[in-house]
Amino acid sequence: MENTKIRERLAALRSKMKEYGIDYYLMPTSDYHNSEYSADFFKAREFFTGFTGSNGTVVVAQDWAGLWTDGRYFIQAEKELEGTGVTLYRMGNEGVPTIKEYLTENAASGSKIGFDGKVVPSAEGAGYESIFAAKSGVVVYDKDLAAEVWADRPALPSHPLYLVPADLCGKSFEEKLSEVREKMEELSAKDHLICKLDDIMWLTNLRGNDVECNPVALSYAFITPDAFHFFVQSGEMTEEVSDYCREHGFTVHDYSEISTFLENYDYDGDVLVNKGNVSYAMDKALDKGLNPGSYKKVNNFDPTELMKAVKNETELKNIREVYLKDSAVLCRFIYYVKNNVGKEPMDEYSLAMKLDDMRAQLPGFIELSFPTISAYGPNAAMMHYEATREDHAEVKAEGMLLVDSGATYLGGTTDVTRTMVLGPISEEVKEHYTRSCMGMLRLAAATFLEGCTGRNLDILARSPLWDIETDYKCGTGHGIGYMLNVHEGPHNIRWAMRPGLNDAALQPGMIVSDEPGVYKEGSHGIRIENIIEVVKAGKNTDGQFLKFAHLTYAPIDLDAIDKKYMEERDVKLLNDYHKQVWEKVSPLIVDQEIKDWLKSATREI
Amino acid sequence: MENTKIRERLAALRSKMKEYGIDYYLMPTSDYHNSEYSADFFKAREFFTGFTGSNGTVVVAQDWAGLWTDGRYFIQAEKELEGTGVTLYRMGNEGVPTIKEYLTENAASGSKIGFDGKVVPSAEGAGYESIFAAKSGVVVYDKDLAAEVWADRPALPSHPLYLVPADLCGKSFEEKLSEVREKMEELSAKDHLICKLDDIMWLTNLRGNDVECNPVALSYAFITPDAFHFFVQSGEMTEEVSDYCREHGFTVHDYSEISTFLENYDYDGDVLVNKGNVSYAMDKALDKGLNPGSYKKVNNFDPTELMKAVKNETELKNIREVYLKDSAVLCRFIYYVKNNVGKEPMDEYSLAMKLDDMRAQLPGFIELSFPTISAYGPNAAMMHYEATREDHAEVKAEGMLLVDSGATYLGGTTDVTRTMVLGPISEEVKEHYTRSCMGMLRLAAATFLEGCTGRNLDILARSPLWDIETDYKCGTGHGIGYMLNVHEGPHNIRWAMRPGLNDAALQPGMIVSDEPGVYKEGSHGIRIENIIEVVKAGKNTDGQFLKFAHLTYAPIDLDAIDKKYMEERDVKLLNDYHKQVWEKVSPLIVDQEIKDWLKSATREI
Repeated sequence: MENTKIRERLAALRSKMKEYGIDYYLMPTSDYHNSEYSADFFKAREFFTGFTGSNGTVVVAQDWAGLWTDGRYFIQAEKELEGTGVTLYRMGNEGVPTIKEYLTENAASGSKIGFDGKVVPSAEGAGYESIFAAKSGVVVYDKDLAAEVWADRPALPSHPLYLVPADLCGKSFEEKLSEVREKMEELSAKDHLICKLDDIMWLTNLRGNDVECNPVALSYAFITPDAFHFFVQSGEMTEEVSDYCREHGFTVHDYSEISTFLENYDYDGDVLVNKGNVSYAMDKALDKGLNPGSYKKVNNFDPTELMKAVKNETELKNIREVYLKDSAVLCRFIYYVKNNVGKEPMDEYSLAMKLDDMRAQLPGFIELSFPTISAYGPNAAMMHYEATREDHAEVKAEGMLLVDSGATYLGGTTDVTRTMVLGPISEEVKEHYTRSCMGMLRLAAATFLEGCTGRNLDILARSPLWDIETDYKCGTGHGIGYMLNVHEGPHNIRWAMRPGLNDAALQPGMIVSDEPGVYKEGSHGIRIENIIEVVKAGKNTDGQFLKFAHLTYAPIDLDAIDKKYMEERDVKLLNDYHKQVWEKVSPLIVDQEIKDWLKSATREI
Repeated sequence: MENTKIRERLAALRSKMKEYGIDYYLMPTSDYHNSEYSADFFKAREFFTGFTGSNGTVVVAQDWAGLWTDGRYFIQAEKELEGTGVTLYRMGNEGVPTIKEYLTENAASGSKIGFDGKVVPSAEGAGYESIFAAKSGVVVYDKDLAAEVWADRPALPSHPLYLVPADLCGKSFEEKLSEVREKMEELSAKDHLICKLDDIMWLTNLRGNDVECNPVALSYAFITPDAFHFFVQSGEMTEEVSDYCREHGFTVHDYSEISTFLENYDYDGDVLVNKGNVSYAMDKALDKGLNPGSYKKVNNFDPTELMKAVKNETELKNIREVYLKDSAVLCRFIYYVKNNVGKEPMDEYSLAMKLDDMRAQLPGFIELSFPTISAYGPNAAMMHYEATREDHAEVKAEGMLLVDSGATYLGGTTDVTRTMVLGPISEEVKEHYTRSCMGMLRLAAATFLEGCTGRNLDILARSPLWDIETDYKCGTGHGIGYMLNVHEGPHNIRWAMRPGLNDAALQPGMIVSDEPGVYKEGSHGIRIENIIEVVKAGKNTDGQFLKFAHLTYAPIDLDAIDKKYMEERDVKLLNDYHKQVWEKVSPLIVDQEIKDWLKSATREI
């Protein structure tokens, strides 16, 4: 059956394309800042194809349209694209061309490609540029055709900015700015454009609400030796924030003025910009400043990235407190699930809602740090599974439930995963669970020299699984923001190097997740995730040693632990950890029944 | 007291410098191929300064001369430079300029620096070039002034080439050459210059004897799509090798013709050369070919490096056998030392000689793979310690003796370290020894995914020591040649990344050393080194797993092992290893007394 709604939208788009002489129009899944989540305003690809997945790019021509998405979405995309006339390109499948391969092969000489350059990363845009340059073609990146066709398009997200309370910052905007300027000088850059939203929020000690689960505002920052230009939607400025910006010497511009500003700026020195974080449009705008040729772009990681990752003492103090409170909520939740499963109806979605509600009742709660993953049985084998109100599994007194969740509070952002035993489980599952637990605890117990990166340490978490020739197809750990995004760099714990990935050395004050697991399609999924903090160990003639301290304190499910897989040291690590869980969390639990359960859940084995 | 001999030599050099208008003349410690050991011909720096250390560079001007060397040689250099008028520059010490810093500060505008461009690596030469270019100065790299002043200079080393017996190669020259040409094509290079001696030997299935402990001949190879140009001293060609070269289609040139050849070659495509392995002079010669500007140099690791590192089945079979025979010799040596210490006089040097003699008696012995390190007591804390006939310690029935040794035989090159207990040792030493042993065995027992490099695995060997905040200041492991150099790349086991270091993934057929240890200045030194082979483990949907197999089979000294530091798994690994030592080595030992000792030395704990 024809999907006339989509066909009409595509027809309108194609007529606009004709008007501008654009042969191919491309729409990815991204906002202006390559954020992890895109607001409805940015869902042009969905509007023109009907495909709702979280990853996909559509390319439209007059007599053809193609949608590229990855393996998670093949079935869903097939269904949603039915009758639209849009061809599905299954990324990664054999014989399926990439977008660039498709365009290289099909675009005629002299043809034009168009896209909104603000939603296309710089490197990707440059790729299209070179393909079309080779064909004597042209790239049109200053037209957002969706804006001209999509009549009832949602507004650009715009929510009030707010201040991080002064006693929670630990470092003033001025201190941070002067550190950034020092780095700019080191890199011989006079000016610096920051496009990454969480970096701008960290620097300004402001927060926003324009991206789902990320407490950030759509904004840009442009730093000169004597000015701080802050671009944000005027409607987001409260009186308090206005005063703050004035007091701290911000030069405030409307968010929409960034391109014009960059294009008319009188650069008299080089400008620092992270190629990996700037959009194609902003990168081009930087080239167009006054006195072209008299300055160049210095491509480097944003200095704010590393500064933001190394938490200051105030932040650390608050983070430790927040993680304890968050852990106590999780303990109560685990107790509820394990104690009531099989007795009252529960499903993946209702349990996620229940946990979200429990967190929301904590003082200082701001929002979830990502949509809670509640995955039962074989669903847990899908790393990015999301149960919905409409589509979810019933949770029964057998197998396991994996819950990965967290929130942003005044004082910190949390992230934690526990996999709970709800009934009988197999020997294989017990071994997988025990080894995941060993990996998590061994990494957290590491002592290592300053200078080590996650690449050096990853095997500590992974080897209990590698020993039985089992792997998890993801990194072991990621950095986490302070009242900010749940995923941040520049450090991580992974064994494989990816080109362009910043493989930063671990430093005291960094926090990182430690989340080994096992994912067996159609059978079971296990993940045990603690957040750990890098702290100093001893210093001697061999150097400065570092180690980790746990931030997360919630029981490991002893129903799935089998000592026969463990070394003596693993047993000791687990018992020590559980002792700490009891000591730190039990004072935060009022209900005697839950306390009794926690005592038993953290017993020595 | 004036050292008139050195002063006269320097005076002669300075007069030559005047003749050519050279203001600074530089002599490093290197042969034409940056080999690990330099023959006497190349010891110009020693000739002109009297300094005999294995690392140092001298720069001579009319009214000044400076010698740069590292911390190992400060005391020795001070002594040897006395009365020569040469100033010692202690590298790494605070306030001491590097050679480049010195020249940048002191060289006058328009001045000339000279050196023999064949003994200076390309990148280093380029560094001097840019310093002098900035001063409108000049680099003279085609004059070896030592040749003009040094009357009784030893001849360029020149020893007969020989063939690796056909049944020991496993792969013919033609097969290897065609693999190299495939790689050249992949890298879009028409021609390829190889300067690295062990790579040329590997490719040609020839061996030489021009570098101490390295079975290599001074040579160059230049590969075109249809010719193989081999540059070697004419005097090194035996009739057998001449026939071989003819049969295999080599175009043979005299070694001295390489520059002229490169400068007059008609490049009609790009030429592959590893910037890290080419001398400044050869790099410049490549620029001077006919049709300059019509070709460029492709800088890449030599493809031979990886091919050479992945041993073929024939090589592996021979290596395994050779390591067993070599292990048996070491067992007999350990027995001798432990059984006779305190009963008969022995010292570091005499013991090294004894072990060298025992190896020399093995069938197929060619030469030592490096000068045997025999270090007693605190001397073992110096990683590069070398006892000499004149200067060595007596070995007594107390403390420990570290012996690091190996040889090249027909069928393989070995390397092994054992630290032997000769009498009472402290608790601390026992802990250090036990943890070094745990590290060695844990790394050797690792299971890991294809794609891992040594950076991912290093911590397995190091963490038993890091756990007590102790480190060894060197890598854990290096590759080893097949009837070739004892140190080869491109793989290694190290945790820290060095810029320019090839961090190659481990592959089945690679062999690598596994040598953790502890070095406490003035107290003790421990190193336990096995060579291990990368082999396939299981393959499943999670990927291809790899693991190691031991090649070295010699007892770990149980007199220094304390189980209280070990996990259950460590004890099992040690017992399993010792069981294998007994099973594999005892059949090679004739003497019943030694057999009985070996039985006890490999007993279960």
